[in-house]
Formats: sequence, C-alpha cells, structure tokens
Amino acid sequence: MKPPFIHELVLGLSGRSYPITIGYNFLGSLNEVCPFIAGRNAVIISNSTVSDLYLSLVTSSLDKTNSNYIVINLPEGEQEKKLSNVELIVSKMLEKNLDRSTVIIALGGGVIGDIAGFVASVYQRGIDFIQVPTTLLSQVDSSVGGKTGVNHFLGKNMIGSFYQPKAVVIDIKTLDTLNEREFSAGAAEIIKYGCIRDIRFFEWLEQNSMSIMSKSLEHLAYAIRRSCEIKSSIVEQDERESGIRAILNFGHTFGHAIESGCGYGNWLHGEAVSFGMVLASLLSQKLDLLKEDDVVRIKNLLESMDLPIESPKLDISTFVNLMKKDKKNKNNRINYILLDGIGNSLVKGFVPEEISEFLTYV
Amino acid sequence: MKPPFIHELVLGLSGRSYPITIGYNFLGSLNEVCPFIAGRNAVIISNSTVSDLYLSLVTSSLDKTNSNYIVINLPEGEQEKKLSNVELIVSKMLEKNLDRSTVIIALGGGVIGDIAGFVASVYQRGIDFIQVPTTLLSQVDSSVGGKTGVNHFLGKNMIGSFYQPKAVVIDIKTLDTLNEREFSAGAAEIIKYGCIRDIRFFEWLEQNSMSIMSKSLEHLAYAIRRSCEIKSSIVEQDERESGIRAILNFGHTFGHAIESGCGYGNWLHGEAVSFGMVLASLLSQKLDLLKEDDVVRIKNLLESMDLPIESPKLDISTFVNLMKKDKKNKNNRINYILLDGIGNSLVKGFVPEEISEFLTYV
Repeated sequence: MKPPFIHELVLGLSGRSYPITIGYNFLGSLNEVCPFIAGRNAVIISNSTVSDLYLSLVTSSLDKTNSNYIVINLPEGEQEKKLSNVELIVSKMLEKNLDRSTVIIALGGGVIGDIAGFVASVYQRGIDFIQVPTTLLSQVDSSVGGKTGVNHFLGKNMIGSFYQPKAVVIDIKTLDTLNEREFSAGAAEIIKYGCIRDIRFFEWLEQNSMSIMSKSLEHLAYAIRRSCEIKSSIVEQDERESGIRAILNFGHTFGHAIESGCGYGNWLHGEAVSFGMVLASLLSQKLDLLKEDDVVRIKNLLESMDLPIESPKLDISTFVNLMKKDKKNKNNRINYILLDGIGNSLVKGFVPEEISEFLTYV
Repeated sequence: MKPPFIHELVLGLSGRSYPITIGYNFLGSLNEVCPFIAGRNAVIISNSTVSDLYLSLVTSSLDKTNSNYIVINLPEGEQEKKLSNVELIVSKMLEKNLDRSTVIIALGGGVIGDIAGFVASVYQRGIDFIQVPTTLLSQVDSSVGGKTGVNHFLGKNMIGSFYQPKAVVIDIKTLDTLNEREFSAGAAEIIKYGCIRDIRFFEWLEQNSMSIMSKSLEHLAYAIRRSCEIKSSIVEQDERESGIRAILNFGHTFGHAIESGCGYGNWLHGEAVSFGMVLASLLSQKLDLLKEDDVVRIKNLLESMDLPIESPKLDISTFVNLMKKDKKNKNNRINYILLDGIGNSLVKGFVPEEISEFLTYV
C-alpha cells in the first residue's frame, strides 16, 4: 500500500471478513477506504471534542460520493454508555426515516465505538457500521473484534452483542490530539498482547517503549498493527468467546472491578487494566506459573509507559463482590487469565474466598 | 416419535440448528425435550395469565433436573414490548448474579417471545433461550426463525436482533385456553404460508378450515407442522432477510401500518395481517399477477377462519406515512410482497404516491 495507508490487515470471518486499515492523515479519504458507503445514508456518532477536530474530514469524504449524513454527538464519558442513549440515537434515526441500508460511522474512542456498534446491531435488527477509532485504546483493542454494548448500573458491558463492523479505519494522526494519560491507557492494551501471546513483541516493546511514548510514527504504526494482528487471530478462532478469546481479558477481571469500584473516569480503563495485569501476574507467580523476574519485567514495561502499578484504595470485600458479577464467571467461580510465562496464557477459575485471601497478602 | 410428541422438525442452520417439537400436553416434560437445561439456572419470562395456567408444569419439569429458576411476569399487551422492560428484566437477572450459562424460557405469545429473545440476545452479549409459545400465532410464526425485538414509539420491532433459540417447544394443549379472536389471528399466519409458498397447503386449508376452527388435534397439529416447515425452509435459505425471507411479510407492510395506525390491541396483529393480505392480493390483481377468482378464494378462506377482510377506519395519508417507515423499504420505495398466483410470491417496490392512488380506488 502507498502512504498515507501504512498497513492493511484483514480480520477473516466466513462471510463477514473486514479490512483494518492503518495509516496517517487519511480521514478525508474514508470514501476510498470504504467504497461501499457511496451514495448511502450515513449516521456519524461522535462527541463534540472529536467532532471539532475530525468531523469535517469525514464529512468531506462523504460529500465526494454524495452520501447524505446526520451527526449525533453524545456527551463525553463512560457514563454515557447507557441504554437511554441507545434509545436516543434510534429515535433520531427513525425521525429521519433512515432505512436498513444506512451506515453508522463510529468516530471516537471506545465509548463511542461500543455504543454505536450496539445501535448498529439492533437498529431494525442490524445495519452496517464502520469503526473510526480516535484513541490509542480503541485503535488497538475495542474497535476490532465486534464486541459492542452499553453498561448497566450493576455492571459494565452487561447489555451488548457480538456484531462485526464492515471496516476499521485507524488514522494515527488522531493520536496527535490525545492527552498523555489517555495515550498511556491505550498502551496498556498493547502490552497485554505481548504478555498473553507474543514474547517477541513484548521484548520489542521493552526495547522501543521510549519511541512509542514519543509517538514515532513508524514504531506506533507497528505497535498498532501487531496488536490488531494478535487480536484478529484470536477473534478469528473464537468470535463469540466460547474459549480462547477469553485470554484477551488478561488484567480485565481485576480491572473492571477497579474501574467500577473507584467510579468510572477516576481510573481509566487502561489504567485499571494495568494494575489488573500486575495482580494477574502476581496470581500467576503465586501458582508458580510465572517467575518473579518476569513479574518485574511486566511492571517495568507498564511503568515505562506511565501506567499505574500500585493498588487503588478499594477494600477487599467490595473488590471481590464486584468481581462476582464478571461475565466470564461460571458456577460461582471467578475466572482469571494467568500467564504461563510471558507470551502464554490460560484461564483459571477461583472461588471468591481464594481471591480474598490472595488480595490480603498482596 | 411417541405421543405426547406428535411431530419433531429441525430448523437447520450451520452450527445453530434447533428442534421444533410439536405435541399435546407435555410441558411437564420440558426437561426431556430440552435436556441441555439440566442443572442450569433458568429465567422464565411470562405474564400472569399464562403463568397461572402453565407455569407449574414448566417449573415441575425444571425441578426434575435441579435447575434453579426465577420467574418474571410482565404486564400483558403489545405496549409492553419496549426497551424499558428489557432493562427491567436485565436488572432482575443481574441482581441475582445470573451468569452466561443461564437459560431464558419464553413462556407466552409473540410479545413474550420477542422481548425474551431480545433479552437473551443482549444479556452479557448473548445467552441461550427456549421458545415455549402458547398462542397459535406464536406457534406458527414468531417463535420460529430467530427474529427478536421490541417496539419504539415511532415503529414496531425497530430495535431487535436475529438470534435463534436453542429449541421451540409447541404444546397444542395451550390453545385450549386461547380465546377465539386470538386463535383466528394465529390462523391468518397459517393461511399466509399457503398463499406465499404452497398451493396444496392452501387447498388443504380450504378443505379443512372447519376442523381447524373446531381445534381437531390432528388437523391443528398438521397445520402447525406445515407452517413451521415452510417457515424453517425459508429461514434456512436466508436467515437475516437479505432476500427471500422477505416473502414471510406478505400482508405485513399494510398490516403493521393498520396495527400502529389503529392503536395496538384494537386490531390484533393477525387481524391486521388478514386485511393486509387482502390488500396485497388486490395489488397483485391490479398488476395482473393474480386472478380475481384467486382473490376471492383468499378472502373466503380468511372469512372461514373469522378474519376481517374489510378496511379499518384509517385515512390514506396516515396509512401511507406509516408504511414509509417499514423496515423493508429501500431508496424511498415501499416494498410489498405480491402473489404471482396462489403459492408463489415476489417482492416489489412502489413509490408512496402509487400506493396512495391504489388505496383510493380499493
């Protein structure tokens, strides 16, 4: 591929495969990357911060092929990922008589991608959608693989679907405007891929963390590409998480509880996952699956990307009760992803009492 | 199969095939028909009328295999098929910490089946569910084929999914308690299958309408079986309605508008579809696809099952405006299913003005 497109991958699912295009400064050419939009109605779902920066590029590309569009800006924040906003978006779409040939374009971070994808999956029983992630976290994780959904006050992502986009369009230039804390939060998911699946990538990250943090285009593009590749290969094997896909949740059982227990927004998802990975690594060490040296390497890599490796203020019983609601649980056991050495992972269930005891001595 | 099971069919979808069991007085043996429930948590979604009659049979069958269950009774009526009830059911399930291995059992008519199926499709991104339809309409139509959803105040079934049940369990004995008007409404969908796909079945219905109306077990079981067979064969070819599945909507474009325009409940779904089929037949006649004699045969068969063949009070512009929101529409054309002779059907789009003119002269 020629610049501004740097990499193109394909997530292969029989009949529902889609391209993941990674490039720099090409949102104005969305129509070229997604020629199937031409002439169709589009709904751009975004928030005002992202819209101010990137909406005009997206709409200019739609104008080139005479697509009509409406824009729906949601307020910002994880607390907006809720069912009432799904109903609000559906209402606006029905008011415009938008039919099943309409395309939804999710322009924003994980919150926008998750809710827009969920709307696409349920609007008139399902319409096409495109992910245009504008945060590092959504570029390397949430935009790929078809998990959509909204939160319930009793738990994160409790209402959702598996519904694949028609394309994922990753413009690295959007990261120029991302603040440092959000950038680091995204890096947590990149580190995750090395931990669970690819020790070479983990080592490459150890060697290149400075370049990534300084947003070297070449390094960042490779880190995003390799993350999307690893995620795609896992999703291709197990789209609906009946088995191996669960390993993508390394650090997430602890992480979701931290996010929820500390209040969404106080700990960003990637920050909570960072400390969650520290805990999951220590749990792996306790079971003699991971060496102490490797736990230190993981902590060091997280720290080098400005991620938290210290515990939040959260009492153990609250923490454990929150994890009892985790979607991966089965038969009253809480499931965790453990590392069997860096680059290999497995799923293991624990009764809540074991986890309470583990947390007491961490 | 031995009584009480009369017929068993399979709806075949790669990896997601499921049995449709038709019998008489066997709800107390649900555990035998659905052995996969054993030991799992179950959520029975129903309404109080149906629960009073049949819940104890279903729970006795769950007790036999030590399944724990909760019962959620919704108020009755089409107006209850709404997103706030989805949230209510999800809340009750989360309060009980029910995990992804939970099975939802939809015990009731189309409203219960549609909303329960939708909850199953989105609860923690999808869990198993079983359809136990207790009305004729849901037994021959809505419980088979995986269409789930809720209404929006701007249109019927506007929020939903394609999500297949793990089994459909049809106990004809439940029809003993169904009132005559609801029974006739279900018969409309049976007549539909003859019209769109099978002239022999249409002729059989002409010959046996009295036996069906008097609920002869043998005739009713055959009519339900043949309806489920025709529906299954169409769904197997086109699960997500990208093509042929649309023919199942014969009479429904007009019908949905009548239901909505006259207020849900004033015209039952099957009643609205009955007159919708009359209109669609007349439209087919206008295009020289259907002979006048055949229109008369269709009207006579509908009348013999106590179904309406006269127009409701609905002004034409309201009627047409409602149809402009139909989910099958594309490029500002309203799509109708027409008959090319009884037993053959096709889809044809019309601009709203053509339909206004047609309705003026009907």
